[in-house]
Amino acid sequence: MCPPIQSQYPWTVAPLIANAAMGGFSNAPLASAVSLAGGIGFIGAVYDLDALSAQLDSAKATFEKSNILSKVPDGVLPVGAGFLLFAAKLEGAVEVVARHKPAVVWLSCPNEDEDFGVWTKAIRAVSPNTRIWIQTATVASALALAKLCAPDVLLMQGSDAGGHGPRPGAGIISLVPETRDALDAAGYNHISVLATGGISDGRGVAAALISGADGVVLGTRFLASEEISLPVQEYQNAILQAEDGGTSTVRGTHFDELKGKSIWPAQYDGRAIVGPSHTEFVSGVSIEEIREKHALAVAEPHKGFGDLRAAIWAGTGVGLVKKVMPASAILDELRQGARKAVGGVANKL
Amino acid sequence: MCPPIQSQYPWTVAPLIANAAMGGFSNAPLASAVSLAGGIGFIGAVYDLDALSAQLDSAKATFEKSNILSKVPDGVLPVGAGFLLFAAKLEGAVEVVARHKPAVVWLSCPNEDEDFGVWTKAIRAVSPNTRIWIQTATVASALALAKLCAPDVLLMQGSDAGGHGPRPGAGIISLVPETRDALDAAGYNHISVLATGGISDGRGVAAALISGADGVVLGTRFLASEEISLPVQEYQNAILQAEDGGTSTVRGTHFDELKGKSIWPAQYDGRAIVGPSHTEFVSGVSIEEIREKHALAVAEPHKGFGDLRAAIWAGTGVGLVKKVMPASAILDELRQGARKAVGGVANKL
Repeated sequence: MCPPIQSQYPWTVAPLIANAAMGGFSNAPLASAVSLAGGIGFIGAVYDLDALSAQLDSAKATFEKSNILSKVPDGVLPVGAGFLLFAAKLEGAVEVVARHKPAVVWLSCPNEDEDFGVWTKAIRAVSPNTRIWIQTATVASALALAKLCAPDVLLMQGSDAGGHGPRPGAGIISLVPETRDALDAAGYNHISVLATGGISDGRGVAAALISGADGVVLGTRFLASEEISLPVQEYQNAILQAEDGGTSTVRGTHFDELKGKSIWPAQYDGRAIVGPSHTEFVSGVSIEEIREKHALAVAEPHKGFGDLRAAIWAGTGVGLVKKVMPASAILDELRQGARKAVGGVANKL
Repeated sequence: MCPPIQSQYPWTVAPLIANAAMGGFSNAPLASAVSLAGGIGFIGAVYDLDALSAQLDSAKATFEKSNILSKVPDGVLPVGAGFLLFAAKLEGAVEVVARHKPAVVWLSCPNEDEDFGVWTKAIRAVSPNTRIWIQTATVASALALAKLCAPDVLLMQGSDAGGHGPRPGAGIISLVPETRDALDAAGYNHISVLATGGISDGRGVAAALISGADGVVLGTRFLASEEISLPVQEYQNAILQAEDGGTSTVRGTHFDELKGKSIWPAQYDGRAIVGPSHTEFVSGVSIEEIREKHALAVAEPHKGFGDLRAAIWAGTGVGLVKKVMPASAILDELRQGARKAVGGVANKL
């Protein structure tokens, strides 16, 4: 019997909820609001680690105006930093971690899974109290990464997730329980499993927990937070307007080809909102022609998001995202909704 | 506040669990065992409605040796019949329903969604007490079918489901809550929502219920029941051996092309176990060559299932299916597992 996961993140309250480390979107305003509200706030990095460092400084400044730092005994900053391993340079990432000591680093999308081991070792060397979260999407890789990295958390990404991940995959409904069982059977019952992909409200939170997750990560829902960093307002409008997430979003690698050759390793694709770039692609229009139209749309004030030509990353839970709220209110609603859902199931059992 | 769904199926116990109407696999032995154990047993039909009629006779004979018929006040047979609308002839189906009065018909996979309306009307005319379940996979179609058919149940099939369904789609983690909300908002709160796709054990049952489902349907798990009808033992062996359901299964239309041109309407695909036919297909081998190898494998005693060349339909929950059990024991385990999962979530909230 392991202690509750909250003991590892002592400023948090149950159930454990984090925002996804969405590069360019999840910055200090969102991350600090999530952590101050008892969740785990993540700042997402892509290439620019100086920007990440500045965001961590900003989050720290916000925390110093509150009492949250008194709840964090081991000298870490109560916030997470997310790295895309294929894009970020290890040396720069290690410098940022050594300087800021984030409570968590979230590692995802390496060129090779072995890179997870290199990063984990390097980060632990400079910040032993920083918890390591590793994102993956299959039972086999979870087992392999448990052995390779001894992570604190395996973040299991279901096929409903917005944005990028390894393909193909299962939804968390089967992925989470099978992973939990496999880890337990292999002696890794001390590694926490978090779930992400398709969770947008308290029902999804409760369902993920009941499937065996120790906590949850939401991305799309936080795109409708007041604190999210947006390229233009039209991006958020598209999130609010999308319905029927299984048809209004789709996974593919073609979203990564809109600006030119994809920067992503071949094993990853991404889920985004269906728009003209997608419908033209599947109807056989050449990528060159689609890129030309995309470039014209991006030059508009709406940056291509107003006509859905540019990639708007979103998960299948997008249809449940209906209004913009402060992050703290989102966390409150998720927690209350999860408790209500668990309470309400009694009459079905 | 609607009465519990059990009141509509008075021989059942909570939580409501049905076996999928898997044509050729779900016959009288499985269906009668599931119903006798307090679930809803389904017999699946494809083309041969005389065979369905014989199976319903057989289930009735089994029921007459028990006291289950005394629990069914309105003259229906406490079992369901599943029809693939693009394949079964309406006139024959209506005759079978008129003669046997199954408690439920499960309608799926029409050429056009309007066919659901034609079938519903024809079935209600000959058996008003037969409940109508309609299988679909999107919020929009659920709303349209609620209006068109006034079904008793909308069976929402998530993308993790084995076998056939409309594509693309979402997992039940987001599909079920969004559908429930949309139905409620449109005044259809009296229509029950059931969930299927990726559920293999009590955790999945509980997660689906907590997401907003009134009950669940499992297919893959019942392929490992003692009462399932199998083409050869190798089929079940493949189910038991498959792990990591998101990678060991995959959706596609190519599984329907192995025996020759697909009989399926273009809007459907199916999830099956990854084998050489699939890996050759995605690596560019011609369908003609794959068909030749498939034909040779099918001529073997294992009928192509021993070497995984033939299509073995399974959902992503297949990795949680580890042993063959009697259907009644599966139901007991699912119910106990669901209660245990709900009880165990308290310390995460």
